[in-house]
Amino acid sequence: MSILTPEILTELEKQSIELPSWAFGNSGTRFRVFGTPGTPRDPFEKISDAAQVHKHTALAPSVALHIPWDMCDFGDLRKHAEDLGVRLGTINSNTFQDEDYKFGALTHEDAAVRRKAIDHHLECIEVMDATGSRDLKIWLAEGSNYPGQADMRARQDRLHESLSTIYAALGDDQRLVLEYKFFEPSFYHTDVPDWGTSYTQVAALGEKAMVCLDTGHHAPGTNIEFIVMQLLRLGKLGSFDFNSRFYADDDLIVGAADPFQLFRILFEVVRGGGLNNPDVAFMLDQCHNIEDKIPGQIRSVLNVQEMTARALLVDREALAAAQSANDVLGANAVFMDAFYTDVRPALAEWRERRGLPADPMAAFAASGYLAQIAAERVGGTQAGWGA
Amino acid sequence: MSILTPEILTELEKQSIELPSWAFGNSGTRFRVFGTPGTPRDPFEKISDAAQVHKHTALAPSVALHIPWDMCDFGDLRKHAEDLGVRLGTINSNTFQDEDYKFGALTHEDAAVRRKAIDHHLECIEVMDATGSRDLKIWLAEGSNYPGQADMRARQDRLHESLSTIYAALGDDQRLVLEYKFFEPSFYHTDVPDWGTSYTQVAALGEKAMVCLDTGHHAPGTNIEFIVMQLLRLGKLGSFDFNSRFYADDDLIVGAADPFQLFRILFEVVRGGGLNNPDVAFMLDQCHNIEDKIPGQIRSVLNVQEMTARALLVDREALAAAQSANDVLGANAVFMDAFYTDVRPALAEWRERRGLPADPMAAFAASGYLAQIAAERVGGTQAGWGA
Amino acid sequence: MSILTPEILTELEKQSIELPSWAFGNSGTRFRVFGTPGTPRDPFEKISDAAQVHKHTALAPSVALHIPWDMCDFGDLRKHAEDLGVRLGTINSNTFQDEDYKFGALTHEDAAVRRKAIDHHLECIEVMDATGSRDLKIWLAEGSNYPGQADMRARQDRLHESLSTIYAALGDDQRLVLEYKFFEPSFYHTDVPDWGTSYTQVAALGEKAMVCLDTGHHAPGTNIEFIVMQLLRLGKLGSFDFNSRFYADDDLIVGAADPFQLFRILFEVVRGGGLNNPDVAFMLDQCHNIEDKIPGQIRSVLNVQEMTARALLVDREALAAAQSANDVLGANAVFMDAFYTDVRPALAEWRERRGLPADPMAAFAASGYLAQIAAERVGGTQAGWGA
Amino acid sequence: MSILTPEILTELEKQSIELPSWAFGNSGTRFRVFGTPGTPRDPFEKISDAAQVHKHTALAPSVALHIPWDMCDFGDLRKHAEDLGVRLGTINSNTFQDEDYKFGALTHEDAAVRRKAIDHHLECIEVMDATGSRDLKIWLAEGSNYPGQADMRARQDRLHESLSTIYAALGDDQRLVLEYKFFEPSFYHTDVPDWGTSYTQVAALGEKAMVCLDTGHHAPGTNIEFIVMQLLRLGKLGSFDFNSRFYADDDLIVGAADPFQLFRILFEVVRGGGLNNPDVAFMLDQCHNIEDKIPGQIRSVLNVQEMTARALLVDREALAAAQSANDVLGANAVFMDAFYTDVRPALAEWRERRGLPADPMAAFAASGYLAQIAAERVGGTQAGWGA
Repeated sequence: MSILTPEILTELEKQSIELPSWAFGNSGTRFRVFGTPGTPRDPFEKISDAAQVHKHTALAPSVALHIPWDMCDFGDLRKHAEDLGVRLGTINSNTFQDEDYKFGALTHEDAAVRRKAIDHHLECIEVMDATGSRDLKIWLAEGSNYPGQADMRARQDRLHESLSTIYAALGDDQRLVLEYKFFEPSFYHTDVPDWGTSYTQVAALGEKAMVCLDTGHHAPGTNIEFIVMQLLRLGKLGSFDFNSRFYADDDLIVGAADPFQLFRILFEVVRGGGLNNPDVAFMLDQCHNIEDKIPGQIRSVLNVQEMTARALLVDREALAAAQSANDVLGANAVFMDAFYTDVRPALAEWRERRGLPADPMAAFAASGYLAQIAAERVGGTQAGWGA
Repeated sequence: MSILTPEILTELEKQSIELPSWAFGNSGTRFRVFGTPGTPRDPFEKISDAAQVHKHTALAPSVALHIPWDMCDFGDLRKHAEDLGVRLGTINSNTFQDEDYKFGALTHEDAAVRRKAIDHHLECIEVMDATGSRDLKIWLAEGSNYPGQADMRARQDRLHESLSTIYAALGDDQRLVLEYKFFEPSFYHTDVPDWGTSYTQVAALGEKAMVCLDTGHHAPGTNIEFIVMQLLRLGKLGSFDFNSRFYADDDLIVGAADPFQLFRILFEVVRGGGLNNPDVAFMLDQCHNIEDKIPGQIRSVLNVQEMTARALLVDREALAAAQSANDVLGANAVFMDAFYTDVRPALAEWRERRGLPADPMAAFAASGYLAQIAAERVGGTQAGWGA
Repeated sequence: MSILTPEILTELEKQSIELPSWAFGNSGTRFRVFGTPGTPRDPFEKISDAAQVHKHTALAPSVALHIPWDMCDFGDLRKHAEDLGVRLGTINSNTFQDEDYKFGALTHEDAAVRRKAIDHHLECIEVMDATGSRDLKIWLAEGSNYPGQADMRARQDRLHESLSTIYAALGDDQRLVLEYKFFEPSFYHTDVPDWGTSYTQVAALGEKAMVCLDTGHHAPGTNIEFIVMQLLRLGKLGSFDFNSRFYADDDLIVGAADPFQLFRILFEVVRGGGLNNPDVAFMLDQCHNIEDKIPGQIRSVLNVQEMTARALLVDREALAAAQSANDVLGANAVFMDAFYTDVRPALAEWRERRGLPADPMAAFAASGYLAQIAAERVGGTQAGWGA
Repeated sequence: MSILTPEILTELEKQSIELPSWAFGNSGTRFRVFGTPGTPRDPFEKISDAAQVHKHTALAPSVALHIPWDMCDFGDLRKHAEDLGVRLGTINSNTFQDEDYKFGALTHEDAAVRRKAIDHHLECIEVMDATGSRDLKIWLAEGSNYPGQADMRARQDRLHESLSTIYAALGDDQRLVLEYKFFEPSFYHTDVPDWGTSYTQVAALGEKAMVCLDTGHHAPGTNIEFIVMQLLRLGKLGSFDFNSRFYADDDLIVGAADPFQLFRILFEVVRGGGLNNPDVAFMLDQCHNIEDKIPGQIRSVLNVQEMTARALLVDREALAAAQSANDVLGANAVFMDAFYTDVRPALAEWRERRGLPADPMAAFAASGYLAQIAAERVGGTQAGWGA
């Protein structure tokens, strides 16, 4: 019998992880963006690639868009997605690639620039109406590079004003999720650097505003699962941006740098009722600078699935008993036992039972899709950061 | 004419920095506590030493106590302090040195242990009544060392309950300040690791509960002045524990590791209305493992005073103009100009005008006090961590 | 058939991990050392406890001593150890717990203090002669707390002189291993803070001097396996001090904080020829502040064994092929496949075949040893930091 | 009389800091490169801008070039520089912006790619012959993003081979300096991540190979001045790349993030004989993403000059006396006294005496140069990362 009980499989079957359209475009560092054959040249090709991930895993039924990178006829795009068995998801705004935003957008000194940035978000809400998306995700790439450059307090107040205006435009079933980030692209201060700031900002807006936790956006040594716990406890964990990092915000494949950390995060998700809870969206936000992008995304959603399975395997009763007894080694052993259990064979077998490939990575490689798009997608401009 | 305007001097004259009684006892690392001749053997001798700091600087009119380390007849202690020109200040509780607290205190699984820890705090409030102290400071040295060891969420809920009981016992003019700390003495999770957790816990209590910001208790790279700004903005910055650090929570002399960071912090205090604001207490929380303790404290309050003077020197109008113009180098230059100004001669002259020694360090050294206490304080047990 | 091939089992059978005698004594933080029933009161009881670890795992045939903490009649101690099936191993010097060493030992300004510290090491070499130990391990707990306090360059030169004198006293078959540590107990500079310093110091001594790599002694984000690779390449990796950490030098159980990091380290050991290579000693250097000590040590050696098995499982040929093809995802997959393989059942079965308990943790718990020593070891002073 | 003694002024007069040609081009983050009016479009315009820095400060007589970004007729460029009173300096190679180098250059698996990268360096040496440059600086932007992706040991060996070939091509008066960097653009391992690796690699080459220390390329918390001390002690500090950082490798203006750290670094330079020592080249390596570039460079060289003046002000005799007496607070006070001394008025006066502007920033702003180049440099492609 499988180590994965029917209850666990029921949970796993419900799991869905949203893909970012931009993960299929080229990305890189400030030093160089390397290209790849077959990289999408428009939003439609990105959706086609994303659909491959879902086709082989049944884990990724929706795709997040980035505005203005993915501007197009959204009726057409929506139909294209649905034809391929996926749907359009979270809308991500962009206030970091326009000359006007060099010194801020929603926090800018100049009311005209703030207005422009607010209008961009209102436009994003219109896109959401067209795409049927629920969530507007705001990553605030604002801050300053030198001490004294900016009035951090005034910016915080202006941020509240700007967000309030955007919030007021949300539909009844729409939400705003506010991402925080420790540093980059600003190097001295960022206007939403930590969960506390995101939390206090969204709490001041209302129930439809939530925190987005990007797993790569913390100071070295931060206990991220603690924050997951706290935000679930406070009812304000709106979404995850999954990726991993060794140093800064590397945007590596989720689980690649510290699998045990991913396990601990997912355990807190399970413990706090965040799994398959519509309030908590699971998304990837990654770069594939040197590895192939579609397999990179397949690997990522599998990593999340496998680690969720391990988190579900934790013997919660035995854990609680050991915790109550202050049996340090015992409680840790219960926890580690689940982490060290190899769930992959059981998952492979379960996939096959559901008509999915046992090994999605191998199945995709065998499909010839990469060669096909490399041959077909010639000419045009490859999508990437900024397109 | 002095570079320090009458307005600046008026602010500086009002400044007071509370000293921690434990700074006068021996301290050290887990590897070794080195002793010093003349180290106090009881709370009275600690107050005597603290009064020396105030005598030479007029900056340190109050002394924080640590319970149970400083248990004694508080009527006598209060009179002793007043005779020496100082007063008793913040009461610090201790829930980290009793066998019962090995696995937590206010968060412990066992209701009996929680009750004991709560009772300890109620006793601290009684001490406050006796000493006339306003603030009860809680550093929650609780957490776990291994993943899985503890149910972090349940502990958070129990913490809320325990704090609520303590909060209910506060007098009308009393406050509770909750300190946060990134790690240590727990090494996997701490129950109040960051300002966000402290803020949400005290916000759930009420107006008399505030956050205590210890400058050494953050992850590497944290922008501490941003947190100062945010807590002042939210009206929840109750007190500072000043010290400095290169690596972890080293508890070095404030300003010793990164003077520019101290400047930035004090500038945000000034900008946010936190200077000489009764809501925001300035305290030291340091160790003097290898240096002499009384001069170590004198050096510390002088560092805060000098840096406050520099923060007050910032040309706020010029800064605002450069900020509005997004003149990055210009705004930074205004800021740095104040930092690089040597305020020491003007402060020395001002001290002399007020009947204080121009050079408090030299004056104390010349006073012979260290030799005197080394000769007098023979026998008995030196105070230190745990006494 | 077992996933562990005969070749792998042959390697695993040779593996030995030295235990530190001090892990059986009480330890703690600067805030508190909690005691435990049954804690050893002398070196003989420590050896008895260490022998329990070996008895249940066959992994820990030797015990490192700490001088002067373990001073006793070494003939008797050696016999006691041999009677219990273990032997005495590395001798650790101590120059951090004597008043004279407050400002340094081998690097001290004062030649008399340096002489005392050198003589202590010569005494350690005499102990090595008595115990039959090969390695003298030097952890240099020296440095300074404040910029300007010390002349770092002169200290480096004096360190070279002191080490040269000690080196000259080594027997033909004896070695000196020099540990480096990022910080603590010094908080501004440590005299041997990184592998580069340890390497250049030991390279200046000669072939019998090597680097000791403590896995907890690095800056945040350091790629430790790279250092393992480099030191093996340079022929200067003398020994490991295994433990793990989340924040600073927490001395948690090896593999507890980041199991994948331990895997990567052990893979580089295997790849570089460091496994079961007499030049590279495997040691634990841990604290068990809140968990039981003997099971804590059993858990630790099992963690190393299990992770070594995983490292040996890496399909080196497939890995090399993927690396040569710059198949990023493919190479990473080969690597992760070994990490995610559950080697525990195969190891349990193999243990049983060798007459060992399948589950050493359970077997030790069932043995009643902890209850027995708690009952027997009453009175006397428990061993701990400083004893 | 000036606080700057004739001896100090003599040292300051000799000081020269090399500017990087690329600092005058546009730069940014992976998210966006913002442009500026007047940005150079070719190496000649970069030299013209660099000459402005020297004209107003007399501190920056040479300019480092980056190959292939600055490829041109070097005879013409040399004459252009000399006409403007500056000379061409260090040649920087580039092996990170060619498709072939996606997986490495000097360390690449494929001998043909390595050969190409070696040839690029031989070409750089030819450039050095043409420009009269002494130093070839190699920043090795190589590494891997995922564990298992690369054979780190084999890469280290191939690096040695490649460097040996390059080294053999150096002229008698030419040098190779090897930069190390903690991370980026690789995110799991870099092939030269720390000073130890750079040191052991250059030590294996010979006397003409030295280490380049970039002040932004270390792990959080690293004591950089210790490394300066150690490399000077080992005779292997070849050059500095000055910049500063709050988080990762931000490449902010030198001294902007932690002025006290810059002071400590420069004090170790002075103490170790590295100031105005031809073996130790002072260079900037910075980005000016949002601030004006020429004033950004002027600010930078002034920061280095001012901090060097402070480092020279340290009362070395008093410091040594306090160090010998283990007077922790006294030694630190001597050190801090120099840091807190405001050297700016004395430097301004000294500049004027030498026919330089007292305030180089103001003088440059008043010169109208920025407006002039904004008007003149219309059309063409602005230089930036990659050009």
